[in-house]
Amino acid sequence: MTAEIVAVGTELLLGDIVDTNSAELGRVLAEFGVTHLHRQTVGDNWKRLAEALKAALSRSDIVFTIGGLGPTQDDVTRDGIAAALRDQLIHDPTIEDGIRAKLESRRVPWVESQARQAMRPASAETLDNPNGTAPGLICRKDGKVVVALPGPRLEFVPMLRGPVSEYLRSVSDGVIHSRTVKIVGMGESIVEHKLADLMRGEDPTVAPYAKTGEVHVRVTSRAASKEEAEEKVAPVVEQIKSRLGEVVYGYDDDTLESAVLAALRARSETLAVAESCSGGGLGERITSVPGSSDVFLGGVISYSNALKVSMLGVSERTIAEHGAVSEQCAREMAEGVVKKTGADWGVSVTGVAGPDGGTVEKPVGLVYTAVSGPNGTTVDRNVFPGNREAVRERSEKWALLQLRRKVYEGS
Amino acid sequence: MTAEIVAVGTELLLGDIVDTNSAELGRVLAEFGVTHLHRQTVGDNWKRLAEALKAALSRSDIVFTIGGLGPTQDDVTRDGIAAALRDQLIHDPTIEDGIRAKLESRRVPWVESQARQAMRPASAETLDNPNGTAPGLICRKDGKVVVALPGPRLEFVPMLRGPVSEYLRSVSDGVIHSRTVKIVGMGESIVEHKLADLMRGEDPTVAPYAKTGEVHVRVTSRAASKEEAEEKVAPVVEQIKSRLGEVVYGYDDDTLESAVLAALRARSETLAVAESCSGGGLGERITSVPGSSDVFLGGVISYSNALKVSMLGVSERTIAEHGAVSEQCAREMAEGVVKKTGADWGVSVTGVAGPDGGTVEKPVGLVYTAVSGPNGTTVDRNVFPGNREAVRERSEKWALLQLRRKVYEGS
Repeated sequence: MTAEIVAVGTELLLGDIVDTNSAELGRVLAEFGVTHLHRQTVGDNWKRLAEALKAALSRSDIVFTIGGLGPTQDDVTRDGIAAALRDQLIHDPTIEDGIRAKLESRRVPWVESQARQAMRPASAETLDNPNGTAPGLICRKDGKVVVALPGPRLEFVPMLRGPVSEYLRSVSDGVIHSRTVKIVGMGESIVEHKLADLMRGEDPTVAPYAKTGEVHVRVTSRAASKEEAEEKVAPVVEQIKSRLGEVVYGYDDDTLESAVLAALRARSETLAVAESCSGGGLGERITSVPGSSDVFLGGVISYSNALKVSMLGVSERTIAEHGAVSEQCAREMAEGVVKKTGADWGVSVTGVAGPDGGTVEKPVGLVYTAVSGPNGTTVDRNVFPGNREAVRERSEKWALLQLRRKVYEGS
Repeated sequence: MTAEIVAVGTELLLGDIVDTNSAELGRVLAEFGVTHLHRQTVGDNWKRLAEALKAALSRSDIVFTIGGLGPTQDDVTRDGIAAALRDQLIHDPTIEDGIRAKLESRRVPWVESQARQAMRPASAETLDNPNGTAPGLICRKDGKVVVALPGPRLEFVPMLRGPVSEYLRSVSDGVIHSRTVKIVGMGESIVEHKLADLMRGEDPTVAPYAKTGEVHVRVTSRAASKEEAEEKVAPVVEQIKSRLGEVVYGYDDDTLESAVLAALRARSETLAVAESCSGGGLGERITSVPGSSDVFLGGVISYSNALKVSMLGVSERTIAEHGAVSEQCAREMAEGVVKKTGADWGVSVTGVAGPDGGTVEKPVGLVYTAVSGPNGTTVDRNVFPGNREAVRERSEKWALLQLRRKVYEGS
């Protein structure tokens, strides 16, 4: 089975948007063992889209379009698909009813242009889009299939995990099964070195991917049934875990934050944060995990020095003598938030995220993270590479890594 | 003049890499007023690359390839270009000398496979690549041009800013100038309705793009000089601003958070946050703006009810009678953080982000946001659509929108 992606949107060609959706869909196609040899990107022009779709349909079994399903005149994907398939474009009252109901529940008034979203090629069935107004479409005509998906990421990703994966499961021959082993605190080249023999294997395949501050190793096998593939993957995953040890923090959908929360939950312990340069990002990361409220109490965003003193009890002398970006300040922040919140564990972050504010002694990227827990407080010092966003992300991940290490030491 | 990009790399199709290079090149093409209607992505296969190049050359004046210039067997771009142009592939001793010199200076030994990088189509001239071994290529044959650029970002971006921009300047006729008007708090279809006549215009063009919780409208013109294009764009931008009013929060690189910070900075006022369901995300968003520390003091992540009481002074009775997700609680959180931090403005967020915790009375997506400032406190109630991530993102944007509204009312 072969598939091809046609991404639609002038903003993609102009470079206003980086096309992460096509990459996500590419990963899902690979998971289902669907061969995927071409991708095209066209602007908001139905004729060029129709030409691109015809080229794609001439060489692929399934063509996915991404984007162009909105209500505006620029949203031409429905028109392009109908033209390429020589299909009629019809108004579907059921789609319109669904859109009206969604808008009503959000108290958004109906505008006549919305009716555009209720049009579909006659051959199309709809794919449910719980996070947006326009449904996806799956059009089957003359042995060819075109699947139309919405462009906004918050609509696209859930549809990919839901109805699109379901559809691919139903049509793909055999299954690809893969598990991802997630590693933090060990570089890619060391991971590769330790797994060199496994990486030479052909079934399952073992491949490392470097992420910001993490390494993910994907173990993949293809077989007639899921069970058969799992039997080949499981022992290799075990091997990797036993070779790498505690730097393996989880698998598949686990995140560093969900792994840390699970470890604390198992011990019935609670957590609070004290954030300076991360500005709330560590709390945001922790609370991105559903159900985090049984472990995470909250904390303080002590962005100004005054709040470090008044809300966390950092001593004025510490700030005067060592500055806010210092081992001492990080320590007092973590200990202070434990005292103020009554949490078992306190984690703090203070650093120079840049682009300004760096000095020779305290360069951009210098970050202190501290963990205060039942066995005392430890402070780590790092100088992280990258821009403001990267420094903040690495700081948050490091703080979680450090917390995880302390929690395991304490157990 | 028309151009087209052919991105080369199996890792792009598999989704292991997101194609930021094509987006960067797209932006540069737009800057130089080069029309850019198609993009293709193919894997590391010279036959499919040659087919893609032929299709591209049949409709575009210049074709850019990105990637596939390295020394390995997977690097087939040179072969694909030669095939598409019916050109010979020759060994260029000057290129080889250059590569040898670069390797020597980095003390990397010469390996015979490196010789692959010294091959080029006979019609090619080289483009200097100061950050890598293989040079870029510019091949001119039968009135067509193919420009080959390396894929690694650290090589690609400097070449884009250097020799590629120089080349485009020499061949492009005129420039494209565009400005983006950024809107929050008004849906895409209403924006479109209000700008319908402008959107039918051809010079400048006016096109809306929906983002999560925002709409961006781009106004674009093409002219012989930048000044001439600006003269056409500016009055239309003014028109849009005057028709849409205060929902226009900024232009171009402005973000909602940078616009709010700028407004507060101009008034020498300070800001603090009190976050429940957003868990720190509002603070993270505000502090993503460099230099936010002169306005933003910090705040409290009051994820647990106990912290709402102990750190923000929310009354226990409010929580017992109305719950933490209530108008009263949002109000007391915002007023409490003003009192505790001494900020001029306090913003609070409390809601049900889901996926669990929803009830008939308080469904998933129900969020109260409050703004407390010099003229009192207002609370907004929304039921946001989407998953946990979407509800949180929309809550944060709404809180900023509400703050912005209050700041302007107060002025």
